Amino acid sequence: MHHPVINKKGEIIASAVTNLDLHDISRAARTFGVGRFFVVTPLADQRRLVDRIVAHWRRGAGAAYNPDRREALATIRVTRDLTEAAAQLAAETGQRPALVATTSRRREGCIAFNDARAMLERGRQLLLLFGTAWGLAPGLVAESDFVLAPIAGPTDYNHLSVRSAAAIILDRLLAR
Amino acid sequence: MHHPVINKKGEIIASAVTNLDLHDISRAARTFGVGRFFVVTPLADQRRLVDRIVAHWRRGAGAAYNPDRREALATIRVTRDLTEAAAQLAAETGQRPALVATTSRRREGCIAFNDARAMLERGRQLLLLFGTAWGLAPGLVAESDFVLAPIAGPTDYNHLSVRSAAAIILDRLLAR
Repeated sequence: MHHPVINKKGEIIASAVTNLDLHDISRAARTFGVGRFFVVTPLADQRRLVDRIVAHWRRGAGAAYNPDRREALATIRVTRDLTEAAAQLAAETGQRPALVATTSRRREGCIAFNDARAMLERGRQLLLLFGTAWGLAPGLVAESDFVLAPIAGPTDYNHLSVRSAAAIILDRLLAR
Repeated sequence: MHHPVINKKGEIIASAVTNLDLHDISRAARTFGVGRFFVVTPLADQRRLVDRIVAHWRRGAGAAYNPDRREALATIRVTRDLTEAAAQLAAETGQRPALVATTSRRREGCIAFNDARAMLERGRQLLLLFGTAWGLAPGLVAESDFVLAPIAGPTDYNHLSVRSAAAIILDRLLAR
């Protein structure tokens, strides 16, 4: 999610797309068998940028150089908002996905990783929401169906990149 | 490790340092309570580059802008080879660390994540080796004390970035 997310001051912003997010998160998605990786931004020029990067690796020089990368980036879909992403997923799977917000802050009513794993094992479609910049806007977290418990290390420091957080969460939910 | 690693053809190379590796892996290291993150490269200009990046975030404009980032990058040490990294760790901890290679390929004699966790719980110092480019040189893997089992998702695709692999492995070994 590149919007609505917050900046350092807690203001709602639209963040810029980061090239390595596309690569790292799509490679993790493909490794863990995730069906779709939606890149969500209301900025048309940013959506075109993502399309250009994906096209390079799917059909351009990158596809011949690195077929594994092509396969990973094939999971990417670009949408202007979350509603469009959820609708695409519902159309593809025949099921409205549950929206699961991720956050680095502990809060009341989070679901445990095992709860989310159990939902997946029962065939429930989950759309995991990852915030870029300083994280998902509080309103978006409040509107989601579930909030996943934060990743807890043995320290009180918790400032993982969105790439690292996505990799760990997919591993916890989908590893054999 | 930026040397000895292999390229796409399996040849031994020295890879270039990637800025986001420093940020992502140091943030994961700090989150999971890892003492040191050694960036190993025989190329003097690359070591100077890492020192410059770290100095920006530890003492320069970055330190005031983002103190959390400063704290993460404080785990970084730059060395010219693995021997120097292991010696520094031995001097700091009073214990020769066990060298634990990580790899995406399944092979004979790997140790399980639980085995490595148990070693850490017994107070053993581990120096985890992560390869950039197409991975650690086979000779380096053969010389390590242990080889950690590869990360297995539910698919046969296994092409995580070094940033994602490091995050998942630290989580598996050190999460509460």
